[in-house]
Amino acid sequence: MPERMLYYEDIPSGYEQTLGEYHVTAEEIVAFAEQWDPQPFHLDETAAADSMFGELVASGLHTLSICQRLAVDGLYDEAAILGGAGMEVAFTEPVRPGDTLTASVTVGERRTLEGSDDRGLVRLEFELENQDGDTVLTNAVQTLIARRETA
Amino acid sequence: MPERMLYYEDIPSGYEQTLGEYHVTAEEIVAFAEQWDPQPFHLDETAAADSMFGELVASGLHTLSICQRLAVDGLYDEAAILGGAGMEVAFTEPVRPGDTLTASVTVGERRTLEGSDDRGLVRLEFELENQDGDTVLTNAVQTLIARRETA
Repeated sequence: MPERMLYYEDIPSGYEQTLGEYHVTAEEIVAFAEQWDPQPFHLDETAAADSMFGELVASGLHTLSICQRLAVDGLYDEAAILGGAGMEVAFTEPVRPGDTLTASVTVGERRTLEGSDDRGLVRLEFELENQDGDTVLTNAVQTLIARRETA
Repeated sequence: MPERMLYYEDIPSGYEQTLGEYHVTAEEIVAFAEQWDPQPFHLDETAAADSMFGELVASGLHTLSICQRLAVDGLYDEAAILGGAGMEVAFTEPVRPGDTLTASVTVGERRTLEGSDDRGLVRLEFELENQDGDTVLTNAVQTLIARRETA
């Protein structure tokens, strides 16, 4: 168990936290795409040059997975997360080899659930920025988290 | 180039297609989670037994990545996809070791873009079902696709 544990009561709407950073390599972009998203502009510099992007770019799923890893390491590991119900994702700028992505999270709407005294539903609004300060991804996750009083 | 190539004009609203299937193993659930979503209920049977799920379940990101792989192999490989703008995901049922997931897609709203004669924006509504016919994931993707007349 971590030294502190965050429950529903501990993360009010408006709560903000910076999470870690992640360095993106061409090797990892290609490896992720080969397994999960083998489209030409994620696999090969030459094919990507002919695409809308003009260069190799990370799969959106890869960027989203990076966001999730930073969320787990920076927040979920210390929070009484029960599971996720859904997410709304926007891919706002391409992610390129060599980018360093930094994550942050803001707590949006939250509510308790009728008939479930032991948990609440929280909207966690994640944002990933690159080294130039451009937002490359936003991800609003509906997350179930345990309530302290019943834990 | 594939023998046929689908452009914006070729996939009207209401167009439906079945995609392939994917078998999920415990090994892959754990491997994905170790890299991208290391929460206890995705990593370890014993820890998962104490979770809301009661057993090991796949990361939602893993399930979403499976959906993307089936989308690429079953549709995107034959379509003039330019890139994705965003997605709305619902994790409707847990995915467990041994599950076989089947994907399908329905074309939702679609529209051309002012000032961009060469492309259209299409809502692709993916659904993943398990072997029992339960929907485990829905994913509505906003996708840019090239128009035939300007290709």
